[in-house]
Amino acid sequence: MSLSQAVLNQDRLALSRLLTRIENDSAEGRAALDELFPHTGNAHLIGITGAPGTGKSTLVNQLALYYRKAEKRVAIVAVDPSSPFTGGAVLGDRVRMRDLSGDKNVFIRSMASRGSLGGLAQTTAAVVQVFDAAGFDVILIETVGAGQAEVDIAKLAHTTLVVEAPGLGDDIQAIKAGILEIADVLVVNKADRPGVENTERALKGMLELAHPAKRVFQHHGQQMVVEASETPEAESPIWIPVVKRTVAKDGTGIDELGEAIEKHLAFLRTGGEWAARERAQLQSTFDALIRETLFKRFLDDLSAEGYQELISKMVERSLSPWSAVQSLLNGSEE
Amino acid sequence: MSLSQAVLNQDRLALSRLLTRIENDSAEGRAALDELFPHTGNAHLIGITGAPGTGKSTLVNQLALYYRKAEKRVAIVAVDPSSPFTGGAVLGDRVRMRDLSGDKNVFIRSMASRGSLGGLAQTTAAVVQVFDAAGFDVILIETVGAGQAEVDIAKLAHTTLVVEAPGLGDDIQAIKAGILEIADVLVVNKADRPGVENTERALKGMLELAHPAKRVFQHHGQQMVVEASETPEAESPIWIPVVKRTVAKDGTGIDELGEAIEKHLAFLRTGGEWAARERAQLQSTFDALIRETLFKRFLDDLSAEGYQELISKMVERSLSPWSAVQSLLNGSEE
Repeated sequence: MSLSQAVLNQDRLALSRLLTRIENDSAEGRAALDELFPHTGNAHLIGITGAPGTGKSTLVNQLALYYRKAEKRVAIVAVDPSSPFTGGAVLGDRVRMRDLSGDKNVFIRSMASRGSLGGLAQTTAAVVQVFDAAGFDVILIETVGAGQAEVDIAKLAHTTLVVEAPGLGDDIQAIKAGILEIADVLVVNKADRPGVENTERALKGMLELAHPAKRVFQHHGQQMVVEASETPEAESPIWIPVVKRTVAKDGTGIDELGEAIEKHLAFLRTGGEWAARERAQLQSTFDALIRETLFKRFLDDLSAEGYQELISKMVERSLSPWSAVQSLLNGSEE
Repeated sequence: MSLSQAVLNQDRLALSRLLTRIENDSAEGRAALDELFPHTGNAHLIGITGAPGTGKSTLVNQLALYYRKAEKRVAIVAVDPSSPFTGGAVLGDRVRMRDLSGDKNVFIRSMASRGSLGGLAQTTAAVVQVFDAAGFDVILIETVGAGQAEVDIAKLAHTTLVVEAPGLGDDIQAIKAGILEIADVLVVNKADRPGVENTERALKGMLELAHPAKRVFQHHGQQMVVEASETPEAESPIWIPVVKRTVAKDGTGIDELGEAIEKHLAFLRTGGEWAARERAQLQSTFDALIRETLFKRFLDDLSAEGYQELISKMVERSLSPWSAVQSLLNGSEE
């Protein structure tokens, strides 16, 4: 039986092997991805991001339990792009709850950055596709931090949670200004700590800044907003991010958070957003593959010596990078 | 007179115009870059990065004054990649010191992220080349945060400063683990604050982690280390990052910091590192241009409808992104 067939049959060992091959970007991994592709498109992808110290991992564990109670199969992908140089997965496995271990309907995979972060987002996308094809209903994608890598990985998700906690200081919230704009649900975790009201107020204030010009109205029984500034899509209702309090360590607020996520899923399904996000996601996978393949072919056509000679001419300032590109590409294609 | 000629003649208005054209990625901007390229390769590029609240901007201003005292022409490029969605430069101009304004040998440019962060690193590289060609001796590249975007921008620099401050909390330092490894000089700014010893100790501890296996010896009168683990380059001396304390708001420690930066420059020049970094930098500019040009040509060859049809087939799961790439690229090139 092929590896991809074994994965479709929910063989955990085959799944684990395939994930490793994909992380190593092997030809066999790519072939399997190709075979699995027709079986994808069903899972609900939930991204969870936030700074260290917000209790993200515990929250992710609790969400996994929440979905297990509803008989869903759950995969957790824990990604740590914060240290591009050292490698080694620092998130996840060691702190996972006993309630999840041994459950055959839960699969946890930790991933660390290897080399380029663009590569990490692509590998994460491929790993998520495998889980999707393997029949996991919910895929929780956990990332650390608030940089562009997290934004790229969050773009994979249908629903994005940004986790905050009281008492982490204003600086972290300043860093977050960008990532807040991708949040569908904001979570104030560790809500039993002092300062929870301040954190919640700050988040709501930043949401106001992020969504400045809007009109709020009721649509299919949900509160909806419309951006006042954009003309063509002005009538399409959009989601207002909600703020939820949790205490992940004892499970407080998890059911309410789960319900908010389910509401967002319903919104995506009803409003056509699900299809739009899926299309954008496939487009970005395709574009990245095209770029990478074209560049590899270019390097294959040029000898290593030829390439180094070009660079040497640039170092001497006798050839500019722009001129080199023009003459090379015109020479090879015309 | 052409725009690039006016820039070579140190015309500030022409410089400002060209920078705008480059930020807008116009054809005229690209042509000017090409003309200016032979005049580049002379400036010392100094990257300064660190979390919000560390007093980076004030430190950058003080460094500019330090170099002005030595009669150097100084450019400041302030880049804010932390908010990829909102646009608008938040760093810099408004907080710049009166001592710098009106000085014709200082030029300050703020840049905010527009769309892709890969693009921001590329645009910053182009802006820096213009300053280099325009005869600025020192270019201070200031970025906020500690994500991959900062790492990419730091790769432009010959010398990278990472700025910390006491009392910003452990979380921020945890985020920094990756970026510390690119630091040539670590600065503990706001060193008049309580907790400065702790911050310095933490940084030195992290440096130990980042450079685990090393042997220290004297080389050309400087303290040098050799990585014990790597065999081929085992004998090439490398730089040990130094930690310096400053109080930027009153200028304390700036001369010592400036001397440390000059020592690093001397190290780069003597040891062949300058040439290696320049080569790596030109190579990465060239690679990025090649990737972008190949992809643009690919899109030009394919009609917009053809592209959307392909994506629709992927959405229907009747064509995988991998198969699409294979058939398209084999069809068009073989």
